[in-house]
Amino acid sequence: MRILGIDPGSIATGFGVIERKAGGLVHVAHGILRPPSDAAVHQRLAYIHRGLVDVASEYAPDVSVVERVFIAVNPRSALVLGQARGVALAALAAAGLEVGEWSAREVKQAVAGSGAAGKKQMQAMVVRLLRLESAPPSDAADALAVAICQAHSGRLAALGARSGRRRRSLAQATAHRHGHVVRPGPQR
Amino acid sequence: MRILGIDPGSIATGFGVIERKAGGLVHVAHGILRPPSDAAVHQRLAYIHRGLVDVASEYAPDVSVVERVFIAVNPRSALVLGQARGVALAALAAAGLEVGEWSAREVKQAVAGSGAAGKKQMQAMVVRLLRLESAPPSDAADALAVAICQAHSGRLAALGARSGRRRRSLAQATAHRHGHVVRPGPQR
Repeated sequence: MRILGIDPGSIATGFGVIERKAGGLVHVAHGILRPPSDAAVHQRLAYIHRGLVDVASEYAPDVSVVERVFIAVNPRSALVLGQARGVALAALAAAGLEVGEWSAREVKQAVAGSGAAGKKQMQAMVVRLLRLESAPPSDAADALAVAICQAHSGRLAALGARSGRRRRSLAQATAHRHGHVVRPGPQR
Repeated sequence: MRILGIDPGSIATGFGVIERKAGGLVHVAHGILRPPSDAAVHQRLAYIHRGLVDVASEYAPDVSVVERVFIAVNPRSALVLGQARGVALAALAAAGLEVGEWSAREVKQAVAGSGAAGKKQMQAMVVRLLRLESAPPSDAADALAVAICQAHSGRLAALGARSGRRRRSLAQATAHRHGHVVRPGPQR
């Protein structure tokens, strides 16, 4: 099971590819798509779209995953983030991938064992879990973290199915992953 | 000069194509891209991206234009709108088009002569200016309106250049059109 995690942003979009194997998690690749800083917004967004389609084609993941957004920021930041996020989702769908979603809290819980884990702690755990030699840059580390969360979720679901305790059906898990926030609401 | 106007939305994205000729404005086409309502968000966004690339290819406009967004709505709506808007901008850039932007007020001023014009008045003016037989659906009418604004702006700029009064340089006009809102801001 190969997983592509994405951390969308119009200035820098991080990606991370891992595999879940019998022996644990294996790091495959990570990187950052960084459009030219002097490019207009539509050009930056097209750059990210192209880049992600290329990444998906090169690493051929089985599934992709993006952090779910809980809106604590102001509307303007939400619009800017939304633009990059929309392009990432469209590119992943164009590459034929399903897109899972996990909240920041779920990602922290899965990677560091605590929903309140700090940035440094998360980076250290990404390095440890993937047996990396050095810490990846922040955007790529975030992308790897959400991919790790997706990998763990499958294992947890499987464990739950075996033990029969606190089991959540796959259908529920899927409904949970897909889009509390990105579900289309009323707009002009 | 052929102009493609877009009104982005994840439920419905309107488009309108017009031409500015010596005799006035000519309607070429309009329509609405409406992703299947039961599709997941990433699938809807990919549908809109594909659709707009196809529209741009079919009608071969010289320039495209999208309404600038002033954020009065809540962060959640801004994120949802941002996702559709980002995909539209990326698709237009992927089709090799420059993207102009005008505020809702400027569009109303250009189409109906008043920045406070209502929805019905705007639709009536789109019908009259383009000599249509009936009113287009709302999303397509909004897309045609922003295209009309772009067409008028060229004419106004030319008039300004001739009269020498209240003239704004092309560079200024371009800086004005491009992205007060969509300029990337700080994000995670």
